Amino acid sequence: MSESSLGSVEIDPISVAHVEAARSRQSSLTKPAGSLGRLEDIACQVAGIQHTDNPAIVDKWVVVAAADHGVVDEGVSAFPQTVTAQMVANFLSGGAAVSVLARQVGANVKIVDAGVAHPIPGDTSDLVVCKLAEGTNNFTDGPAMPREHAVEILREGMQLAKNLSQQGADLIAIGEMGIGNTTAASAITSVMLDQPPKTVTGHGTGIDEVTRLKKAYVVSRAITANAPQATDPVGVLATIGGYEIGLLAGVILGGAKTRTLVVLDGFISTSAALIAAAIAPKATQYMLASHKSVERGHMLALTHLGLRPVIDLDMRLGEASGAVLTIPIVESAVRLHNEMATFEEAQVSGKEEAGNPESVRS
Amino acid sequence: MSESSLGSVEIDPISVAHVEAARSRQSSLTKPAGSLGRLEDIACQVAGIQHTDNPAIVDKWVVVAAADHGVVDEGVSAFPQTVTAQMVANFLSGGAAVSVLARQVGANVKIVDAGVAHPIPGDTSDLVVCKLAEGTNNFTDGPAMPREHAVEILREGMQLAKNLSQQGADLIAIGEMGIGNTTAASAITSVMLDQPPKTVTGHGTGIDEVTRLKKAYVVSRAITANAPQATDPVGVLATIGGYEIGLLAGVILGGAKTRTLVVLDGFISTSAALIAAAIAPKATQYMLASHKSVERGHMLALTHLGLRPVIDLDMRLGEASGAVLTIPIVESAVRLHNEMATFEEAQVSGKEEAGNPESVRS
Repeated sequence: MSESSLGSVEIDPISVAHVEAARSRQSSLTKPAGSLGRLEDIACQVAGIQHTDNPAIVDKWVVVAAADHGVVDEGVSAFPQTVTAQMVANFLSGGAAVSVLARQVGANVKIVDAGVAHPIPGDTSDLVVCKLAEGTNNFTDGPAMPREHAVEILREGMQLAKNLSQQGADLIAIGEMGIGNTTAASAITSVMLDQPPKTVTGHGTGIDEVTRLKKAYVVSRAITANAPQATDPVGVLATIGGYEIGLLAGVILGGAKTRTLVVLDGFISTSAALIAAAIAPKATQYMLASHKSVERGHMLALTHLGLRPVIDLDMRLGEASGAVLTIPIVESAVRLHNEMATFEEAQVSGKEEAGNPESVRS
Repeated sequence: MSESSLGSVEIDPISVAHVEAARSRQSSLTKPAGSLGRLEDIACQVAGIQHTDNPAIVDKWVVVAAADHGVVDEGVSAFPQTVTAQMVANFLSGGAAVSVLARQVGANVKIVDAGVAHPIPGDTSDLVVCKLAEGTNNFTDGPAMPREHAVEILREGMQLAKNLSQQGADLIAIGEMGIGNTTAASAITSVMLDQPPKTVTGHGTGIDEVTRLKKAYVVSRAITANAPQATDPVGVLATIGGYEIGLLAGVILGGAKTRTLVVLDGFISTSAALIAAAIAPKATQYMLASHKSVERGHMLALTHLGLRPVIDLDMRLGEASGAVLTIPIVESAVRLHNEMATFEEAQVSGKEEAGNPESVRS
């Protein structure tokens, strides 16, 4: 296989038989049919992913990939580039939002340097390094990275997910850190959804409206300069993407290949999902959308993927914070599925049909 | 004080000073300002409720009140009335959705018989009994309960919440069970919001559209027969309410009086919140809306109260399931507030102001 081609990524569909068996069990539980709403769908999805009648979410992982972006030279971010390395140090020392949330829900965290530009201060012994460059090139006048790098970072992500699955991971939540990466995510979303840059480009970490319009113009220039095609997702990643986005797209593909639920975070990890789904459409069956970001392109991207977020809290932090916040809800869905009594077990009467009440099903 | 008057219920506002101190701390944490969205608001609200710089959610309680409704004689529900008692038994034996969720999040559960019509099977030693009648009268041709009962059940609820708070409760999640109670909730919502019955009456546990319209007509008849006034919330509860709704309205008032966060569940517990807020408007400062129910009147009622739900999962189960599902998110909000590093602690650079990047704040 050539270095500049990923080759085909084969992903099995989730088990329809187990989804149907799970649906049937849901209708026997002591509640009006369908009244647990999307919790029922999540339980059925996990049953289908895990090919089991007893889905379980025990071993939980969070992958946070960090990288830098040459496009910050265009003045698209509210924060200086040094913040990427500083925040990686903050992840490693346990002071960041994702650190707090992962401790709460009992998830293990892998922090990945996928291409951070500045030296990372402090103890980096727990850092996973998959670094092909110190960030992308400014993609307004040429590709963000060589195509070989795009292929390689996708492979690194796939391998990381496979390793986690082999160690027993039941769930992988993904997130990112990278000053400037909402610009890359906007560019990817614009191309993959065939939407104008202005429609999908948001305020990132907190730029004003004038800067947002400048950022949308930067995205337009990048697309014009590189002419990426939605039909070539590896090319999209190489020309207007980012290393952390590529790593996360790989994690999604690797998770799907090894039958593991992947929980997306916000706008940027969803742009990685757009790349992954274009490489292997069945990957979407393994995805769960966690929260609805305030980034304007996010809902458009989720709709494109056929996903609906669980939580709506006006968040826009990234670093997997929304994904980790959703883990207890996934656990709830699975526990309800396994632990609730059936109508028969609890001797609770069923729904009355017109004029013909069912007797107690005991 | 007369038996037919509740008297005035004095509730202190939450501490503005502590809310402001919490806001200030939020802006010092290592994240773009405001990027944790409503998690920040929740942390600030809890700080204000608890009058502290270190809000905590440790001792968590769930109150599920059950009662029956004479209006089921009109054919407004998909389930027979015996299900109320059967589900109370299911709560007590740990097989219901709320039982599973409370175990998951480490919350204690109080199941209250506020007026169940049928005998409750099995071991009822853990049941709290606050029963003034075996359910309401059919309110289509007269009041649901004597006014004295409405006052008494509100007092019972207030006392229950005070007892929990005195034992150390940091949070009380509320929910209900009662075949027919979406009809009472629809009637309350219609009167308190001054909206037509058809607008606020939904499908309950799963009736079809024809039955829904019949149910809306039943609500209209009840309102015509009793002429309840929104300015007399105790009268609304007495004429078109229910015992479990009254108990929960009391729990809300008692929680607010003792500075405890009260997490609402869906449509029915929100109808209790409408009664509580009309009795003591400051009670809304102690409320958190958990999920957005598919019941059509729910969002209207939340908007009336100035509340916004956290979760949107198409649920319509009741029994505090949505409220308990939200507890980990409240815990996340508080933990993030207490445990995240500040920019200074983590030596992370702040936001760049136009042309004037802040230096690393170390």
